[in-house]
Amino acid sequence: MADKKHRILILGGGFGGVYTALYLDKAMTRAEKERTEVTIVSNENYIVFQPFLPEVISGTIETLHCITPIRRIARRARLYTRRIEEIDTQKKTVRLAPDFLPKPLTLEYDELVVGLGTRMNYALVPGMREHSIPFKYLGDALRLRNESVRALEEADIEQNPVEKKKLLTFVVGGGGFSGVECIAELNDFLTAAIKDYSNIRQEEIRCVLLQSADRILPELGESLALYAQSILGKRGVEIRLNTRLTAISADAAIIQNKQTKEIERIEARTIVSTVPAAAHPLVKSLPFELERDRIVVTKYLDVPKFPGHWALGDCASVPQIDGIKSPPTAQHALRQAKTCATNIVARMRGTSMKQFSFTGLGKLASLGQRSAVAEVFGIKIKGILAWFFWRTVYLSKFPGLDRKIRIAADWTLDLILPRDITQLKIFPAEHVQQEHFHGGEMIFDQGDFGNKFYVLTDGQAEIVKNGNVVATIDKGAPFGEIALVENSPRTAGVRAKTNCTLVSVARPAFRKLLTHLPGVRDSVGSIMQSHGVDPSGLDAPDEDED
Amino acid sequence: MADKKHRILILGGGFGGVYTALYLDKAMTRAEKERTEVTIVSNENYIVFQPFLPEVISGTIETLHCITPIRRIARRARLYTRRIEEIDTQKKTVRLAPDFLPKPLTLEYDELVVGLGTRMNYALVPGMREHSIPFKYLGDALRLRNESVRALEEADIEQNPVEKKKLLTFVVGGGGFSGVECIAELNDFLTAAIKDYSNIRQEEIRCVLLQSADRILPELGESLALYAQSILGKRGVEIRLNTRLTAISADAAIIQNKQTKEIERIEARTIVSTVPAAAHPLVKSLPFELERDRIVVTKYLDVPKFPGHWALGDCASVPQIDGIKSPPTAQHALRQAKTCATNIVARMRGTSMKQFSFTGLGKLASLGQRSAVAEVFGIKIKGILAWFFWRTVYLSKFPGLDRKIRIAADWTLDLILPRDITQLKIFPAEHVQQEHFHGGEMIFDQGDFGNKFYVLTDGQAEIVKNGNVVATIDKGAPFGEIALVENSPRTAGVRAKTNCTLVSVARPAFRKLLTHLPGVRDSVGSIMQSHGVDPSGLDAPDEDED
Repeated sequence: MADKKHRILILGGGFGGVYTALYLDKAMTRAEKERTEVTIVSNENYIVFQPFLPEVISGTIETLHCITPIRRIARRARLYTRRIEEIDTQKKTVRLAPDFLPKPLTLEYDELVVGLGTRMNYALVPGMREHSIPFKYLGDALRLRNESVRALEEADIEQNPVEKKKLLTFVVGGGGFSGVECIAELNDFLTAAIKDYSNIRQEEIRCVLLQSADRILPELGESLALYAQSILGKRGVEIRLNTRLTAISADAAIIQNKQTKEIERIEARTIVSTVPAAAHPLVKSLPFELERDRIVVTKYLDVPKFPGHWALGDCASVPQIDGIKSPPTAQHALRQAKTCATNIVARMRGTSMKQFSFTGLGKLASLGQRSAVAEVFGIKIKGILAWFFWRTVYLSKFPGLDRKIRIAADWTLDLILPRDITQLKIFPAEHVQQEHFHGGEMIFDQGDFGNKFYVLTDGQAEIVKNGNVVATIDKGAPFGEIALVENSPRTAGVRAKTNCTLVSVARPAFRKLLTHLPGVRDSVGSIMQSHGVDPSGLDAPDEDED
Repeated sequence: MADKKHRILILGGGFGGVYTALYLDKAMTRAEKERTEVTIVSNENYIVFQPFLPEVISGTIETLHCITPIRRIARRARLYTRRIEEIDTQKKTVRLAPDFLPKPLTLEYDELVVGLGTRMNYALVPGMREHSIPFKYLGDALRLRNESVRALEEADIEQNPVEKKKLLTFVVGGGGFSGVECIAELNDFLTAAIKDYSNIRQEEIRCVLLQSADRILPELGESLALYAQSILGKRGVEIRLNTRLTAISADAAIIQNKQTKEIERIEARTIVSTVPAAAHPLVKSLPFELERDRIVVTKYLDVPKFPGHWALGDCASVPQIDGIKSPPTAQHALRQAKTCATNIVARMRGTSMKQFSFTGLGKLASLGQRSAVAEVFGIKIKGILAWFFWRTVYLSKFPGLDRKIRIAADWTLDLILPRDITQLKIFPAEHVQQEHFHGGEMIFDQGDFGNKFYVLTDGQAEIVKNGNVVATIDKGAPFGEIALVENSPRTAGVRAKTNCTLVSVARPAFRKLLTHLPGVRDSVGSIMQSHGVDPSGLDAPDEDED
């Protein structure tokens, strides 16, 4: 047993996890390092610097420049880019999901550091998962940029004014840091981009920010928030306070005024949600005590009653010296990582542990166009000074010299070059997906060309022909199956009678893949026959629709 | 009728189509412009500069910098970013597929310019579509980069030497310009990237280039091709000449020596195919005469017997002055665009047309690491001089000053900064897909953890338990359905007896979406019962596997 290494296993590739590995390396002597094995498990092989995500929307920062490879920061740690399936705190093992090879991997540990962050809680708002773009990961920022360009492309050739308005309306739900920075960059991007679209005028662009509280940026003092509100307002952003997002459908955000209780539809094709956080399912599966979905830890960052178990970052409820719990920010995770690494080493050495003593440097929100608001050591700053401060602080914190240089180059080029309006179609359209419709909305109109077949999984819908309801569709029923055979106008429309959840299947996926599933071809065929449609077209070869 | 505009409709957003719009604008007088309407229909809103695609693999050029928005080049043209569904040369209309709105759009024209390029011809090699990464579009280059990093991540933690070798083998099929530049950049990238992977040594990386002819780069003279072969060979690239790719399966390239007829398996996880070209289905649907899948045009670029119809670029068979047909390159498409625009204007004015007189400037292939081979005006150059020439020529041809600056900045930073090894998981794994297995290959092993259910759509497979074949599976039969209920080791393996095509369905997709399809839940349930498995697990809620 003498030559067995002390195994420190870190779960999560955010600032908390990755910097724990880095600080462990700094805190240990050479002999200690040789007796120790540090492992990180992360879904991604890079760390995302969240404050720069909004700038990816506008292209001010290149997509890849707001992330840094974990291997470059924690050079001595072993990295597993895998999904975690199970944590067993009794046996002290963690099982990882298979990747290329269909074999799960089981890792053993002596010390476990949980830095798994949070998950998005889609459950609160119907349709949020299906019809909004979340704003948390790098892929989201890239997708939002793409969808915005797509909306501009479509709006530029759209003849129908109602549809054009819908295409040019952009809604962001959530008036915290993330929502405010998102709408600011999105609005700037759209304003700059439409110069290349001859049929879109500035006044046709509508950017709406929804906030349930009576002001935006609850993280900051009131005067800064009001300043930010007026700056955004001047640029044409419409801020709706005291407004709750109650549902999102395929073409509208359904909102409610918290005071008047009035319900309103904002018709829009592009809806972003800064989705509220919920506990990671793995965190919930642990036998640790949770407080508001976060793991309770001591001021030393270890989990009470579970020696050798530590938690930090957004998934942990970390007490500060001032008694307040640490907020979920990168600056706190980073300092927690230092405390955690120090205390793991102290435990190995049998020396005394240090308590977490950081209380925050300050808070910053960028408003785009060289403007920002900030609160630093209790001092409030705003405008171009805050913006300059914002850039300097974040750039200095950004991990890796190579990325610092790349970002500085991006910012420099951005001062002189036009905005990028290319639309990358690298997100393949899902062929089988869930959809949500709000009561009263049309699922499809009579005369539409459709290539989708639907199954109503919840709610009730009605068939509308020449303005009259001719039948109702109940839960479990399929409809629109004629689209599986031919590309022709729908002979009737279908409207959601109540709020509806559907599963839709596009023709190519059905024809190429799903008809092979046992039972499917025959069931759909007999539905068609009962509707008086010849099902033999299902077996004809379909055109290639790549 | 006097105030009706003359409508010129250009199909395709490549160099041919987009530059026709640009040159039309230059060739027309102001009065003519006012009487004319120029429209481009393109799948994408940008033009891809193909020669730079290989550099996206290695990150030398940022992803978005090798493309330019069409709107910035052809500023006065109207752009429709839509898929084309039908071309009617009798009625002179083109129908576009629906996008956000489920209504198809029909455009009328007086002059039609067809510049639709080619499609990939997957049909020649079984498994090519399912298991190889094509190399034609921007998304492909990005995907290849991601898959390569993923393979490195997995190899770094892989304990099984056979599997590790498979992960570190990279095969590129096709020894023309595109295949050679691809393997050169890929090899350079891997060599630079493994510095961050402590468990991967340079000699473990295997890069193989497959070429069916007896030398690479048939487009160039023999001496340059041999020079390129020796350069790549020195860097460790294995070049297999006289070798045909006969099939691609989930974990191997199956190749055949053209002389000895010997069949060989190269086990590899990453296989790239520079897929051969075939006619675009829309081109085939036209009543025009085709020659080797390309539209026959006169030396004026118009289609014989169809006045007002023009074709250019890769989809057209354009005669050069020297009697040879134009090769499918950007430099030719660009010059054809100029001739085509001139002649459209001549036709409008009733003046005489000009014949296409370009015969090519030269040919260049980059070999990475500041090396290239080129033939310019009959002169052969190679090495760093050719490389410098390559960069200068292409950069000068690249559309748009802003992109020129960005690319120059990329190249400058690349000289000093390390390669990027972040793996973006923005390509969602397909949940229902087709797979191909070669006779003798294991589809899954006994003991594997699997979350997929399969239906054999072609071929025959056998069930293997403890080394013995216990049953065979025929076409149409489903298997592996236990994976739909639980995450447990497979109780038996399944091996392809002949070449097999399968449809596979992952558990999350099945549980969330497909069980709603009529007939599916019951059919799969009864299959389970007939195999002695309790199907009630199908109805239990599944964990969230986002």
